Amino acid sequence: MNMDIAAVNALPYEDFVDILGNVVEKCPIITAAVWSGRPFLSLAALEAAISEFIDALPESGKEGILRCLPDLAGRDLQSGSLTRESHEEQAGSGMGALNSEEASRMARLNQEYKERFGFPFVICARMHDKENILRQLSARCQNERAVERARGIEEVKKICHLRLQSLVLTDNRV
Amino acid sequence: MNMDIAAVNALPYEDFVDILGNVVEKCPIITAAVWSGRPFLSLAALEAAISEFIDALPESGKEGILRCLPDLAGRDLQSGSLTRESHEEQAGSGMGALNSEEASRMARLNQEYKERFGFPFVICARMHDKENILRQLSARCQNERAVERARGIEEVKKICHLRLQSLVLTDNRV
Repeated sequence: MNMDIAAVNALPYEDFVDILGNVVEKCPIITAAVWSGRPFLSLAALEAAISEFIDALPESGKEGILRCLPDLAGRDLQSGSLTRESHEEQAGSGMGALNSEEASRMARLNQEYKERFGFPFVICARMHDKENILRQLSARCQNERAVERARGIEEVKKICHLRLQSLVLTDNRV
Repeated sequence: MNMDIAAVNALPYEDFVDILGNVVEKCPIITAAVWSGRPFLSLAALEAAISEFIDALPESGKEGILRCLPDLAGRDLQSGSLTRESHEEQAGSGMGALNSEEASRMARLNQEYKERFGFPFVICARMHDKENILRQLSARCQNERAVERARGIEEVKKICHLRLQSLVLTDNRV
């Protein structure tokens, strides 16, 4: 993979969505929508277009994005039904190797968070280890709902940033 | 399946999205977003919430929805990678049983349509047979882009209507 932005700009929408459709988890509509704005001058411009599309959604739409993300160390990890990207991210941060105490603490806090907010705890797992994730999950359960919605979307954008960087070369401009 | 609307309203978001997440093809974000608006008084109210969410999207977002739909009798049908819902719909309208002349005409017109508009030809296949679909595809290639975008979204809503009816009982109200 690792195309440059000129190659990305040349893709028909079907290939663009095939390749980049999961940079926001399970939201190919977002990738498919920003295709309308090509050509992009740089990877940063493509990322900005995605970010602007997300920001323009109503609050329910932002919550919808969050609800498309899997729990960390949750049922999708256990059943093997994570997307490839999520699996790599969760495995990399140690979510597949929790001891039984950590696993039950994670499950309990995830549940508490979802009951409180109506969407899952979202964090860019690649930027954290398991101790840090558990600490943040516990702390963020105490926040206000609007704060957590905005925070979750920030984390979605960090995840998107890293996924884009794994697919598109960063340095060159058109 | 076939839950009533009260049962739908009682679902946690994860089950709501698991069950209803593909009523708009490959756009679980839409289902996940309208969960914020529950309880729904009726199936019609749920359908209206989906429709309003779609209408509030920017034009690029509507194009994004269209780009998440597969071609009729296209590569996803041939490779077996259609979603279950799309497969049933395409098979039901005879898309899997085109003769070679029909298949090549369909492929040529689909390509012409996509090159002209930047999104695929969308029609609620369950409401049409193959002759009718080919006739409409040929005619709609001549329209203006904005007309076809709006028309495609109308068809998405018809598909969504039928998918909802196959999942949720229609008569009862909360």
